[in-house]
Amino acid sequence: MGNEAATAVTHPFFERHRTTLERAVDAIGQRGYWTPYPESPSPRNYGEGAAAAGKAAFDGLANTRFPLSQPATVGQVGSERSPYGVRLGITYPKPDIDALMASVELAQAQWRKAGPEAWVGVCLEILDRINKASFEIANAVMHTTGQAFVMAFQAGGPHAQDRGLEAVAYAWDQMRRVPDRATWEKPQGRGDPIRMEKRFRIVPRGVALVIGCNTFPTWNGYPGLFASLATGNAVIVKPHPNAILPLAMTVRIARDVLRDAGFDPNVVTLVAHDAGDDVAQSLALRPEIKIVDFTGSTANGRWLEEHARQAQVYTEKAGVNQVIVDSTGDFKGLIRNLAFSLALYTGQMCTAPQNVYVPKEGIDTESGHVSFDAFAQALADGVQKLLADDARAADVLGAVVNDGVLRRLEAARALGDIALDTRPVTHGEYPDATIRTPLIVKLKRSDRATYLNEWFGPIAFVIATDGTTDSLAIARDAVAGHGALTLSVYSTSDDVIAQAIDVAEDVGVSLSINLTGSVFVNQSAAFSDFHGTGANPAANAALTDAAYVANRFRVVQHRRHI
Amino acid sequence: MGNEAATAVTHPFFERHRTTLERAVDAIGQRGYWTPYPESPSPRNYGEGAAAAGKAAFDGLANTRFPLSQPATVGQVGSERSPYGVRLGITYPKPDIDALMASVELAQAQWRKAGPEAWVGVCLEILDRINKASFEIANAVMHTTGQAFVMAFQAGGPHAQDRGLEAVAYAWDQMRRVPDRATWEKPQGRGDPIRMEKRFRIVPRGVALVIGCNTFPTWNGYPGLFASLATGNAVIVKPHPNAILPLAMTVRIARDVLRDAGFDPNVVTLVAHDAGDDVAQSLALRPEIKIVDFTGSTANGRWLEEHARQAQVYTEKAGVNQVIVDSTGDFKGLIRNLAFSLALYTGQMCTAPQNVYVPKEGIDTESGHVSFDAFAQALADGVQKLLADDARAADVLGAVVNDGVLRRLEAARALGDIALDTRPVTHGEYPDATIRTPLIVKLKRSDRATYLNEWFGPIAFVIATDGTTDSLAIARDAVAGHGALTLSVYSTSDDVIAQAIDVAEDVGVSLSINLTGSVFVNQSAAFSDFHGTGANPAANAALTDAAYVANRFRVVQHRRHI
Repeated sequence: MGNEAATAVTHPFFERHRTTLERAVDAIGQRGYWTPYPESPSPRNYGEGAAAAGKAAFDGLANTRFPLSQPATVGQVGSERSPYGVRLGITYPKPDIDALMASVELAQAQWRKAGPEAWVGVCLEILDRINKASFEIANAVMHTTGQAFVMAFQAGGPHAQDRGLEAVAYAWDQMRRVPDRATWEKPQGRGDPIRMEKRFRIVPRGVALVIGCNTFPTWNGYPGLFASLATGNAVIVKPHPNAILPLAMTVRIARDVLRDAGFDPNVVTLVAHDAGDDVAQSLALRPEIKIVDFTGSTANGRWLEEHARQAQVYTEKAGVNQVIVDSTGDFKGLIRNLAFSLALYTGQMCTAPQNVYVPKEGIDTESGHVSFDAFAQALADGVQKLLADDARAADVLGAVVNDGVLRRLEAARALGDIALDTRPVTHGEYPDATIRTPLIVKLKRSDRATYLNEWFGPIAFVIATDGTTDSLAIARDAVAGHGALTLSVYSTSDDVIAQAIDVAEDVGVSLSINLTGSVFVNQSAAFSDFHGTGANPAANAALTDAAYVANRFRVVQHRRHI
Repeated sequence: MGNEAATAVTHPFFERHRTTLERAVDAIGQRGYWTPYPESPSPRNYGEGAAAAGKAAFDGLANTRFPLSQPATVGQVGSERSPYGVRLGITYPKPDIDALMASVELAQAQWRKAGPEAWVGVCLEILDRINKASFEIANAVMHTTGQAFVMAFQAGGPHAQDRGLEAVAYAWDQMRRVPDRATWEKPQGRGDPIRMEKRFRIVPRGVALVIGCNTFPTWNGYPGLFASLATGNAVIVKPHPNAILPLAMTVRIARDVLRDAGFDPNVVTLVAHDAGDDVAQSLALRPEIKIVDFTGSTANGRWLEEHARQAQVYTEKAGVNQVIVDSTGDFKGLIRNLAFSLALYTGQMCTAPQNVYVPKEGIDTESGHVSFDAFAQALADGVQKLLADDARAADVLGAVVNDGVLRRLEAARALGDIALDTRPVTHGEYPDATIRTPLIVKLKRSDRATYLNEWFGPIAFVIATDGTTDSLAIARDAVAGHGALTLSVYSTSDDVIAQAIDVAEDVGVSLSINLTGSVFVNQSAAFSDFHGTGANPAANAALTDAAYVANRFRVVQHRRHI
């Protein structure tokens, strides 16, 4: 049963990866820990020489035309600059959009008929080859986003691949629930029953557009890419002008796999473009585009939701992530954990906390009462200690992704009392890297106009509230009004925890409770954590669930008597 | 596993109907024939005296205030008139919308926490009690829509209940796939694994609005009502001003069940209103409304899609249904089947055919060639024969639902050569009923501006095309540009059938092939046929599939170390 029966012969790529798919489908039903892609860049996982080969492949691309042969190429485009200080000098095909779209539609006409097994099989093979290219892609992620290497490898490599596979698993799980045929036999009293044969065909919506972001081009790009591709849609990938390379590598691999599987490679294409032009907007409004996946600013996300009415639009925008500090039995663990969350990738994660609510009367800890000011000081000390050594600091912070972060960081210094000032860090290997430590500013409860906005980057506010009830109320309003991807609470009181859960479920935000160990609120694990809820303004969808995939395809039936 | 485990004690209504639910979930996976609600109004199914009791209950409502106690009632409203000629004289509570909404939100705050088992259990009990009230509701459907009694019973009763149950089954099938908790255990080399407990809570979107239509208030209303209710949303039902009673009865039963289950009955409320006011629009735009289900005109549906941006909007609008006649091995069967499809409920079904494409050179049949004119004449004769007897005609036609149909019918007489003129029919029991037989007009291929519009009512066009290839091309353009709920093809050629399937799958419309027996293109069977595809302009969703339910709820998680 199921649409897998639609094709007489199982697709070889589907067969090759069937076990992985089955385990992935099992994993999304359990949502415990699972991954097929090792997150450690150890040679034990990826082979001796893989790291060096990946680095060499990346280095070899410097000042070249990226090897991607696409139709309708009318020039070259691209001016990426590594946050570590080097201009990449790589250029990409600049397409004539009308002509490219014609090629994409031609490819789509063939692809849409291939059926779920072929779509899913090709996706699984693409992911497998992407996994093998993890080092090359990690270097590309590092030098476009500013992530430190290990994070670029993990988040940009295996973790992103996990998210892609998770989307394929959800797509398959939904598609296989539609039978490819049915016999409808209606009893007619003593007469013969009426019998009809019905066939159900899964048809894709059309052409999908994936709009990549600057900070996590693969991690945020793969779910939409694979959700659309696995449901039979052609996909146009439009990277952020500052982070083209990781997605160009991805598109190249996808096209290779499509070609190897006998499909027109134009099922997956790249539209690289320069900052400041209107390529994203004009693409998103084209009538051929039936699906848009977007990660980026609230302004751009809202514009898409408002204007790209011909398409299903899935957005992850910005929000104000919050930490409610009520009390703790492990103050050192709290400070260590929170300090790391603020510092990791310079606070440039969509999940990084910004607002830390602390009662103005202070909090109870295992070693006695800690005043508001003492809390802020302890957090400042925690961050300072974590980042005291420049080499260690650079490994945690990575580099500043763009000048907007620097401008906000400077502006935020004037917002209130500075508990910890930001400072530049020098990178041992890349002296021109722009690296900054977090800024921590103390704010009053009344500074709502400040702290209810997102200050994307290494900027944290410690906010004196009237107590935990007040903190919860502020957090509730902030999520409902401004959106959030994460909420975190620290308390020794079951009652406070229960209240925080209530708030989280009421306004629709993921909650982490008493993180004092080696899991951080920033982290969202594929196959287990839903990233975004689709229930608050920060995102209109979750990565990844049934709703994320179920409307990317439709079912068309025909019936006749038998 | 699954969210059913969230509540320690299984809800008694869930337990009572568990077998029905399990069979319904099985049915949506198979999509063969299944129903728990007998479509025959026989006493064997519904008990001796049920028909009379239902009629008496309906009759007893004439010229009364409908017994529905709702909060915030500030007056009475309602001026329904039976298409069979009687003013019903029933009035309904007229709510103050602000105050009603406050009560609904209060009820919703409790309902949203009850969880999937309670939501689904309550829905199943409501459907069960609605089934027992099928005769009462059938009379209400008959005297608001103009459907003949048997159709009002079947389509307005058991078939509508099937569609409601189908939506509940899809909702349950999606919700149960989200585990209510998971243990996440990440290996750490030789060290202890990191262990976290994660909880996943299904939360509804908020308050849902169901906008009913004039012709099928229950059949088209129940899917949205039950899809939203089963996923934890409160539901406001806003009937068409001409067809309030069937949905008022439904709401009354729902409120009784909610009360019996210990919930605030304001989880389901009725907003009756007069024609011509702006209640529907202003309700649909309220920030509390997170889901809208609509069946009605293209203009109103598009308005909702355009303006109700705070909500998930599911629309079934209008379209141009088409029949491609290429050739047949059963000409008599074709004519008999098509004639019935045109006549059934006076062509006032959203699935009724309008355009019949016939090659201008005629078609081949089992008894030789039939010219275009002979085909049109045969179809006219078929309809005439079917409706020759007034009593039989009234049973097939029912009554004209509203004056708009009469106006279009008159206007259509001037569009071309009349193959069959419309005539009034006298009803034996209801002399004031407005009953009309179908009008069949012959059109040229070049009359596109006429036949690509929807002429809702008993109006059919027989259109002379340049051949079947041309017919297929016209049909393709019509579906893509104007939408359609059904497409039908008659051909003895496998190649033509294959081409028709291609067209149907390309533009996203359900196809019926060579219907010459006792199944009609108008008919769409719950648990088997998807009604609407969501892939052409006639509807942005299908009744009912995973996509129809999966985004009516969200998942909110919390996690902590263990």
